[in-house]
Amino acid sequence: MRHGNGAVRAFCQTAASGVCHTDWAYLFEAGKGMQMRPFPLILGHEGAGVVESVGPGVSKFSPGDKVIPLFLPQCGECECCLSPKTNLCTKNWTKTQQGVLADGTSRISCKGRQVYQFIGIGSFSEYTVVLDTSVTKIRDDAPLDKVCLLGCGVSTGYGAALNAAKVEPGSSCAVFGLGAVGLAAVMGCKAAGATRIIAVDINPNKFEKAKVFGATEFVNPKDHNKPIQKVLAEMTNGGVDFSLECVGDVAVMRAALESCRSAWGTCVIVGWTELAELTLAPYDLLLGRTLKGTYFGGWKSVEGVPRLVDDYMNQKLLLDEFVTHTLHIDQINEAFNLMTRGESIRSVIKME
Amino acid sequence: MRHGNGAVRAFCQTAASGVCHTDWAYLFEAGKGMQMRPFPLILGHEGAGVVESVGPGVSKFSPGDKVIPLFLPQCGECECCLSPKTNLCTKNWTKTQQGVLADGTSRISCKGRQVYQFIGIGSFSEYTVVLDTSVTKIRDDAPLDKVCLLGCGVSTGYGAALNAAKVEPGSSCAVFGLGAVGLAAVMGCKAAGATRIIAVDINPNKFEKAKVFGATEFVNPKDHNKPIQKVLAEMTNGGVDFSLECVGDVAVMRAALESCRSAWGTCVIVGWTELAELTLAPYDLLLGRTLKGTYFGGWKSVEGVPRLVDDYMNQKLLLDEFVTHTLHIDQINEAFNLMTRGESIRSVIKME
Repeated sequence: MRHGNGAVRAFCQTAASGVCHTDWAYLFEAGKGMQMRPFPLILGHEGAGVVESVGPGVSKFSPGDKVIPLFLPQCGECECCLSPKTNLCTKNWTKTQQGVLADGTSRISCKGRQVYQFIGIGSFSEYTVVLDTSVTKIRDDAPLDKVCLLGCGVSTGYGAALNAAKVEPGSSCAVFGLGAVGLAAVMGCKAAGATRIIAVDINPNKFEKAKVFGATEFVNPKDHNKPIQKVLAEMTNGGVDFSLECVGDVAVMRAALESCRSAWGTCVIVGWTELAELTLAPYDLLLGRTLKGTYFGGWKSVEGVPRLVDDYMNQKLLLDEFVTHTLHIDQINEAFNLMTRGESIRSVIKME
Repeated sequence: MRHGNGAVRAFCQTAASGVCHTDWAYLFEAGKGMQMRPFPLILGHEGAGVVESVGPGVSKFSPGDKVIPLFLPQCGECECCLSPKTNLCTKNWTKTQQGVLADGTSRISCKGRQVYQFIGIGSFSEYTVVLDTSVTKIRDDAPLDKVCLLGCGVSTGYGAALNAAKVEPGSSCAVFGLGAVGLAAVMGCKAAGATRIIAVDINPNKFEKAKVFGATEFVNPKDHNKPIQKVLAEMTNGGVDFSLECVGDVAVMRAALESCRSAWGTCVIVGWTELAELTLAPYDLLLGRTLKGTYFGGWKSVEGVPRLVDDYMNQKLLLDEFVTHTLHIDQINEAFNLMTRGESIRSVIKME
């Protein structure tokens, strides 16, 4: 591994990394639900670590800094970074999505062959090198095996409720899918003051966990003979104010849209999918619904993540409760199995 | 015709009525793009007239009042009317959509058989009876053969830009479809201070007219070998800030969504369709686009329409420029022919 020349980079020792469904999807659904990425590829994008050294020109980081790598950069200079309307930094976006850094190469190789870094990170690795716009410094007292979850899932779901849906006090919400993203969305709905937070999943084992994050009701679509959108409409006199899809499945996206009420319902798509197409009735939109998506929960990454770390340290935001398993990097396949069997919320992989 | 008992009603003499594409669609596309409505049916929903008499209990209107009937009521009492978030009054909604008034019957009959009133109005008629929540009083000096257009098309398009898209000063906009709704959307974009207003239509004869309402550029998709969304992306360095679909065609809706820029683009569906389904890529939403619809431009009807009449009288809003033909009720089929041949913007039908 090397720093390389050109754009500034931080060389990080990864301490811990959450295992996200997206890691699994890019491995096992490449070319299906997800676009094909270049292989060989080091997965992992929900990491936390310590700066080991910095490349030429890096002034914002020093060896020993605790950091969270960011699959969504914040360069601070592009049109998007300069706009308060979005968090979608475009600098080097295409390259990091292809698993390389600014100069078009990755910083990891094996037997002379380039190994790609998943979405510019690759945190299932003892060390990685990232662009200095793709990493943020966090406070020294933050436990890396917990705050790593702020590198993706928890920030995404929590911000989806707060920044994208803009859930309002006293409102009713439905959250579809109770993985880490969905549970974080539940937590965001609660933080925003929602009165009813209806957690929806086909795995009833998730319901007790959802209660911890603030869910007030639970619906298993398998318990009903009618579509879930009708069930929710009956429960809420016409539909919820806000619905959040945290699965990445187009049928669930349609159900989520139809579950929010006409006139002012807002549906936010949080679950990630790249190739599938969503079909919906324009009539549902014409009658006043809004459909939108979000990426990384709308947080401007370099600025936002350290604040979320602060919120965790100040007990405003839960993280420990997401971690159901802590495993060694050698057990990464067990982490995927726990996930696909619905037995984990987040497995955290430790590198040491 | 009779006032009938029960809910309060105003008996109106129609003076003029615009001919809207929706009238045509419900007649010729019933059961195709549009849900089947009961026939026989008196079409027309963009009218203006004078109160001839009022039913028992009507206190807000008196004979001689100039009024505009409203296919979207504003009862002032339902959950939606009490919310600042929506204009979608639900009182009697289902009934007026079926062409009847509050008690489930229409007020027009022919040879003993009930004749339905299109969306609770039926303004292609010398007289009609409407619920007193489905009509609004306007100023005495308003010319009925112009302000009738505020009963549907102009209010819808103009409000779509102002209230639904919330077009911002200095922004770029694309308006798809340059009928009355689209031209009114152009006018709304201009009123909101948009810098670039790109008018899109496959009929180049509409472009000179669009300029009158504020369009700054014109694109005919037929002039290009690439999809219109790519053409617009190239013209605007990635897409417009706001796009408005004023056709009611699902392929155009998708193009409009894809024409607005990622990160913060907003696409508003204004064109009406009931049965067609829209397919889109969730990925486009995940990258920060918002898709929403609007009905009657978001105006709370009873309050909003008189204000729009004022704006017209104060030269803040154009109406005369929409009227390309003034015809007698006997010429209604000619009005439909002019519309389907793309030769009219609005034909106004006079009853006398």
